[in-house]
Amino acid sequence: MRVDTRLDTQSTEATVSVPALLERGRTLCTPRLREAVGRLAAPMDTVAAYHFGWIDRDGRPAAGDGGKAVRPALALLSAQAVGADPGIGAPGGAAVELVHNFSLLHDDLMDGDETRRHRATAWTVFGPAQAILVGDALFALATEVLLEAPEASAAAGGPAIQAADAARAVRRITSATRKLIDGQAQDLSFEHRDRVTVEECLEMEGNKTGALLACASSIGAVLAGADDRTADALERYGHDLGLAFQAVDDLLGIWGATEVTGKPHWGDLRQRKKSLPVSAALAEGGRASRRLAELLADPEGRGHEDEEQLAARAALIEEAGGRAWTQDEARRRHKTALAALDEVPMPDVVREHFVALAEFVVVRER
Amino acid sequence: MRVDTRLDTQSTEATVSVPALLERGRTLCTPRLREAVGRLAAPMDTVAAYHFGWIDRDGRPAAGDGGKAVRPALALLSAQAVGADPGIGAPGGAAVELVHNFSLLHDDLMDGDETRRHRATAWTVFGPAQAILVGDALFALATEVLLEAPEASAAAGGPAIQAADAARAVRRITSATRKLIDGQAQDLSFEHRDRVTVEECLEMEGNKTGALLACASSIGAVLAGADDRTADALERYGHDLGLAFQAVDDLLGIWGATEVTGKPHWGDLRQRKKSLPVSAALAEGGRASRRLAELLADPEGRGHEDEEQLAARAALIEEAGGRAWTQDEARRRHKTALAALDEVPMPDVVREHFVALAEFVVVRER
Repeated sequence: MRVDTRLDTQSTEATVSVPALLERGRTLCTPRLREAVGRLAAPMDTVAAYHFGWIDRDGRPAAGDGGKAVRPALALLSAQAVGADPGIGAPGGAAVELVHNFSLLHDDLMDGDETRRHRATAWTVFGPAQAILVGDALFALATEVLLEAPEASAAAGGPAIQAADAARAVRRITSATRKLIDGQAQDLSFEHRDRVTVEECLEMEGNKTGALLACASSIGAVLAGADDRTADALERYGHDLGLAFQAVDDLLGIWGATEVTGKPHWGDLRQRKKSLPVSAALAEGGRASRRLAELLADPEGRGHEDEEQLAARAALIEEAGGRAWTQDEARRRHKTALAALDEVPMPDVVREHFVALAEFVVVRER
Repeated sequence: MRVDTRLDTQSTEATVSVPALLERGRTLCTPRLREAVGRLAAPMDTVAAYHFGWIDRDGRPAAGDGGKAVRPALALLSAQAVGADPGIGAPGGAAVELVHNFSLLHDDLMDGDETRRHRATAWTVFGPAQAILVGDALFALATEVLLEAPEASAAAGGPAIQAADAARAVRRITSATRKLIDGQAQDLSFEHRDRVTVEECLEMEGNKTGALLACASSIGAVLAGADDRTADALERYGHDLGLAFQAVDDLLGIWGATEVTGKPHWGDLRQRKKSLPVSAALAEGGRASRRLAELLADPEGRGHEDEEQLAARAALIEEAGGRAWTQDEARRRHKTALAALDEVPMPDVVREHFVALAEFVVVRER
């Protein structure tokens, strides 16, 4: 079976280049994203374009940081995993990005987050109502893009997507979106609690991060007509990759440098996020763990901790093993993600690309 | 062709009883709604149950006012219009109600509305984040319910829904939802303007109210496998019925009694809604029209008008013909809605039910 693995027209050899994989994802999915967003009535199109980083707050074109585009890259790869052209996965990649950004718009508002990707969040610039509305619209567009994919692929003269497969893709992305929403609900409920167990935290993160990466890692295969067993195995790869990603994100949320993450220093501690390092530290039960529990249970000064107090909490988390446990968790999930790939017979070069993307996601700051 | 038009098992003759049509809609759709809402993780299930009027704010069962249930009734009728069992339309009726309530949850928050159906709105009781989140979840559930309908109908041993028709229904409801969102965006933008034209107002109302009633009036037919021409004609009936409904709603928003509408007295004037009576009055150009324009353009006291000032504005709108024009508009749209029905060959008794529901929607307060 001949599988197209070319990443650009200049190169004829199949090398594992993550930047090229990400670039290919952007090249094939961004035009679809822009076209979909262009359907929105004013001023929603402007709000969405700002959120995606395509324009600045004054409407001038911006070479914005639209995120790493790991999801589109995965969507294309998953089509190749079942022997299809990567372009078959492109509507899936665009749909997953639409859902991802719908959830970012709403979550930033619910969480009161004022900064994302080094810029002011959309709700702070355009107001809460626009953030709600544009989020809703992006969610609807995701379904729209997928259900149009069969006609669009036929009209473009490319390889055909079957209507039944587009409907299967909608079902999977809707299920992922429901989990995303469950995860955000859990995350919000955690804010009102002094502690959450590691298991609760993992469940929340599986919903909030794992579900959509699972969908991204399988949606191209679904659009290419893969059977459910294959799609489920690819979902498991994406799900565990999501948990690995989130473990790293939780580490960065406490110890990451603002210049790198684009988020405020000690951000997760400031917001009292019950992230993995915190839950793991509280579960350990030693001296530092108990001291941390006391501090988190103390209503005094809540929400007004200064830099020094936050640094002291980070040190307690580390002392109680929360940092090391989370680093190990990232490695474990990385490993199980790769193991899931072994359940799917696929061309070696596609597998290598999945492996390279997983490596990229997990080791970004280790 | 045998068409099941029984409204209950006691009656064997087909009478045109609107309460029975509405009751049938509730009976067939509410269990599906409750089942779908029951899938939500806590506390979203509680927020949704409160919003639907099934429980009060303390969680006690309530015989709440869940709305008139016109949409479910229309969804069932539309299945019968093409000779199918009304039950074929039930997943469609449930999905339309889910989308409708998703938009209510979000719109109430965006608009700052504190009362709906004689009760405190969900965001005032559970906070903005829950209203956003549960709205999102209801939107996702709508797609889920439709895409599961083929399996559910097969499992229940009832008449089968084809997967392709379920996907068509998702496409139509997604398109209607996008219009709903466009309409809300227009409605919000109107708040920052002194006046809008009658055409702009009609376009907004067509999006905000017409689109989903259009979907409700055709979705049962789509699930039953009707061709697009038939579905489009039924959509036109629903769309114009929506405009007629909205014209009446705009009248009630100014002149309706709080006891009847469950909304504050002069509510639309207080919020400076650019509804049809206002737009039509401003377009008239006579003395009262010009005086109204002056008052609306005056930044003094904006948002702090007292009862007397609001009553004076209502009088000016009436004097400039805004009330009469809107009453006429309701009649015109009522007529064109019925004309659209004539494009679809259907059993006489089903047509009579569509006509009766239209009458019910339009004459509710004339």
